[in-house]
Amino acid sequence: MRLTLVGLDADDTLWHNESIFRFTQDRFAGLLAPFADRPDLEARLAEAEGRNLRLYGYGVKGFTLSMIETAIEVAGDAAAPVIREVLAAGREMLTHPVEPLPGVEQALAELSRRYRLLLITKGDLLDQERKLAASGLGERFVAVEVVSEKDAATYARLFDRHGSGPAHAAMIGNSLRSDVLPALAAGAFAAHIPYALTWAHEAAETPTGHPRFAELASIADAPAWLDGCLLQGHNA
Amino acid sequence: MRLTLVGLDADDTLWHNESIFRFTQDRFAGLLAPFADRPDLEARLAEAEGRNLRLYGYGVKGFTLSMIETAIEVAGDAAAPVIREVLAAGREMLTHPVEPLPGVEQALAELSRRYRLLLITKGDLLDQERKLAASGLGERFVAVEVVSEKDAATYARLFDRHGSGPAHAAMIGNSLRSDVLPALAAGAFAAHIPYALTWAHEAAETPTGHPRFAELASIADAPAWLDGCLLQGHNA
Repeated sequence: MRLTLVGLDADDTLWHNESIFRFTQDRFAGLLAPFADRPDLEARLAEAEGRNLRLYGYGVKGFTLSMIETAIEVAGDAAAPVIREVLAAGREMLTHPVEPLPGVEQALAELSRRYRLLLITKGDLLDQERKLAASGLGERFVAVEVVSEKDAATYARLFDRHGSGPAHAAMIGNSLRSDVLPALAAGAFAAHIPYALTWAHEAAETPTGHPRFAELASIADAPAWLDGCLLQGHNA
Repeated sequence: MRLTLVGLDADDTLWHNESIFRFTQDRFAGLLAPFADRPDLEARLAEAEGRNLRLYGYGVKGFTLSMIETAIEVAGDAAAPVIREVLAAGREMLTHPVEPLPGVEQALAELSRRYRLLLITKGDLLDQERKLAASGLGERFVAVEVVSEKDAATYARLFDRHGSGPAHAAMIGNSLRSDVLPALAAGAFAAHIPYALTWAHEAAETPTGHPRFAELASIADAPAWLDGCLLQGHNA
C-alpha cells in the first residue's frame, strides 16, 4: 500500500481565516456596543450562525447575512447605519489579502513532488477560488474541491475521484471535526495541525491513539509524517 | 466520434429559478415603494448586483446582500424594517419547493440510459445541492459540478474530467451566454432551450447556423437532437 493522494484543508491550514472572522466580529461588537453587551451579542450571533448554517452553508456571505440579522435583532429600527458598515466589512473580508502561513510554501513544494495534492474546503466557491489564486499556491494542486459538508462520504468520493480511494490517501487540516475525524472514518490517514483559534462549531475530541492519526505542530512536519504513513501501511 | 457525456444546466433548464427571483424582486419593490419608483429601484438593484458579482458570485445569498445594499441606498436610516423582510425573503428562496419543469423527468430518464449526465451549474453550492435533492432528479446524474464561472475553459476541464473531452460532449441549457456559447467555444455540441424569462446578465446573441448548435423548444426534443449530433459527428 502506497499513499498517492494528499488532501489539504485551506482556511487556517494554508492561510489565516478565523482571525479575519474574529477581527470582523470585534468591529461588529464595537458598532453595536450602544445596543448590546459583548457576551450577549456574541451569543446571539453564534445562535444566528447556527440557525442559518443549514440554509447558508459556510463562508463569508452567510456570515455577513447572520451579522445583519443579529444587528436588527439588537438595534431594531436603528440598525441601518450598522448594517451599512457590516456590508462593507463583509466585502473587505472577500478582498482580504491572502498570505500563506509559515512553512506552507516550502511544505507544498516538497509534497507536490511526491504526491497528488488536492485542496478540499468548505465556504463560498468563488471566495475560495480567489484565495487560492491570491495565495500563489494554485499550481501545487491537481484539483480544488469546494464541498458543502466534510463528512466521511465526501472524503471517500473525492479520494476515489482523484486517487485510488481512501486507503491510499491522507487528509491534513486544522479542524478535528471536519478534516480529521471524517477522513479517518472514511479509511484514510489524517493529521491535525492546530491553528491558534478554533471556531466553536469546529471543536471536537482528539482521536488520540488512532493508528492512522497524527497531531503535527506545523505543516513542515507533514512530509516526514507521510513517509511514516507509508511504512505503517506497508506493515499493515 | 460518439457523444458520451451530456452536460445539463440546472436553474431554468430543469426547474424554475428566474421566476422566483422576479417574485422576490416584486416583493422588494413593494417594500420600498414609499422610497423609490420601481424603474429607479430596479436599475439600482441591477447595478448593485453587477458591481458585487465579482465578489459574491451567483446565487441567492449574493442577491440578498445586494437587495440589502440597495434598500439602504434608497431608504437610508429607515431601511431596517425593509431589511428584516428582505432577509426573510432570501431565506424563503433557499427553502422554496423545487418542481421539475414539464418533460424534464421523462427526458432525463431517457437520456440517462444512453449518456453520462453531468449537472453543471453556477450559484451557491449548498443551495444547488438542496435543489437537486428536492427535485428527485439526483439519481440521473453521474456528478454535480457547481462552478464559479461557465467559460470555455470550465467546460473543457469538466468534459475531460467526466468524459472523453468536449468533442464527445454536449451541453444543454437556457442561457446562450453561459451554457451555449462557451460550450461551443470549447468544441462541444450545445443546445439552447429558452426559458420564459432571461436575467439581463445572461442575454447574448443566438449562434444561428453554427454546425454544433441547436435551438430546442423543449427538453423533450433533446434525445432526438443528440441522435442527430451522433450522425453529424460521424460524417465530420
